[in-house]
Amino acid sequence: MPKVSDDHLAARRSQILDGARRCFAEYGYDGATVRRLEEEIGLSRGAIFHHFRDKDALFLALAQEDAERMADVAADQGLVQVMRDMLEHPEEFNWLGTRLEIARRLRTDPDFRASWTQRSAELNAATLARLERRRAEGALREDVPTDVVLGYLDLVLDGLIARIASGHTSENLSAVLDLVEASVRRKD
Amino acid sequence: MPKVSDDHLAARRSQILDGARRCFAEYGYDGATVRRLEEEIGLSRGAIFHHFRDKDALFLALAQEDAERMADVAADQGLVQVMRDMLEHPEEFNWLGTRLEIARRLRTDPDFRASWTQRSAELNAATLARLERRRAEGALREDVPTDVVLGYLDLVLDGLIARIASGHTSENLSAVLDLVEASVRRKD
Repeated sequence: MPKVSDDHLAARRSQILDGARRCFAEYGYDGATVRRLEEEIGLSRGAIFHHFRDKDALFLALAQEDAERMADVAADQGLVQVMRDMLEHPEEFNWLGTRLEIARRLRTDPDFRASWTQRSAELNAATLARLERRRAEGALREDVPTDVVLGYLDLVLDGLIARIASGHTSENLSAVLDLVEASVRRKD
Repeated sequence: MPKVSDDHLAARRSQILDGARRCFAEYGYDGATVRRLEEEIGLSRGAIFHHFRDKDALFLALAQEDAERMADVAADQGLVQVMRDMLEHPEEFNWLGTRLEIARRLRTDPDFRASWTQRSAELNAATLARLERRRAEGALREDVPTDVVLGYLDLVLDGLIARIASGHTSENLSAVLDLVEASVRRKD
C-alpha cells in the first residue's frame, strides 16, 4: 500500500479516536450514541464503523492508546509518575470515567473482559519491568514481593481514576502520592 | 405515632432498600428502571416512591446505609478493616459499582454532588476520629499530616470499590492491604 494512503488512514483513525474520546467524556459510555459520535467526530456512521467494528472496538482502541502512553511513562519513571501526570491534567482523563461505567460489564461479560485485560497487560508489564529494575538498584523495599507492590500501585491508580472521573481532585492528592511513593521505597 | 406503625414503616423501608440494592447491583444505575425496581422490591411504584422521592433518593439512602455501617467499623478498627471486610464479602458490595456509574454526575451535577458529599462526611469523620486517636497513642507515622493519611486511605478505598465492581478481587489484595496498613503506621 502506498505511503500516502497509510498517512490518510492514520489521520482518519486519529480523527475518529479523538472525537470518540470527547464524546465518551461528555456523555458516558451508554450516552455516547451513534448520532452523538457522528456529531463529535464529524463523520458518518458508515465511515466510523468502517474503521472500528462497533462502539466496544472504539472504546478498546482508546484504552489501548492510553495504556501505551502510560506504559511509556511507567517504564521510565514509574506508575506514580503516571498518576502525577493525571493529577496535573485531569481534564485529559475525564473520559476514564467511562472505564468505571463499564465495570459491571467487566464483571459479567467474559469476552469483553478478556479484550480489556489484554489492553492493560502492557501497562502492567512496563510497570513491572521498572519495579524490577528499581529492586535491582536497591531502591525498592525488600520486605514486600514485587507483585504485591504492583498490585498496590494499580489499586491506587484505580482510586485516582475514580477520583478524577468524579471531579474530586482539588484536595491534597499530590501529598498523598508522595506517601504512596515513599511507601514502596527502601527505608534508609 | 404508635410503635407498631413505626415498625411497619421501618420494615417497608428496609424491604425497599434491599430490593433496590439488588436491582442496582444487577442492572446498574441507568438499567434499574422503575419496572425492574418494582419487580425486585415486590411493591408498586406508588408504594416505592411514597417512601423515597425518586431513584436518586433511593440511591442516596443506600449510600447512607453503607456509610453508617462502614463508619461503625472505621471508628473502632479503621478504614483498612472496612476494606478487609469488603474483600471478604465482595458479593455484598457489588452494588457499589453504581457509585462508579454516577461519577460523571458527581462531576457535572452540583446538587447531586452536594447530597452525596453529605453522605460520605460521616465515614470521613469516623475515620478521622480513629486516626487522631491512633496518633495520640503514637501508633501513626508522624511525618505525614492526618488529612493526608485520610486522603490516602480514601483513595485506596476508591480503588478497591472499582476493583470489586469489576470483579478483579482474586489476586493478592489482602497482602496489598497489609502494605497499606504498614505504610501509615509508625516505624519502630
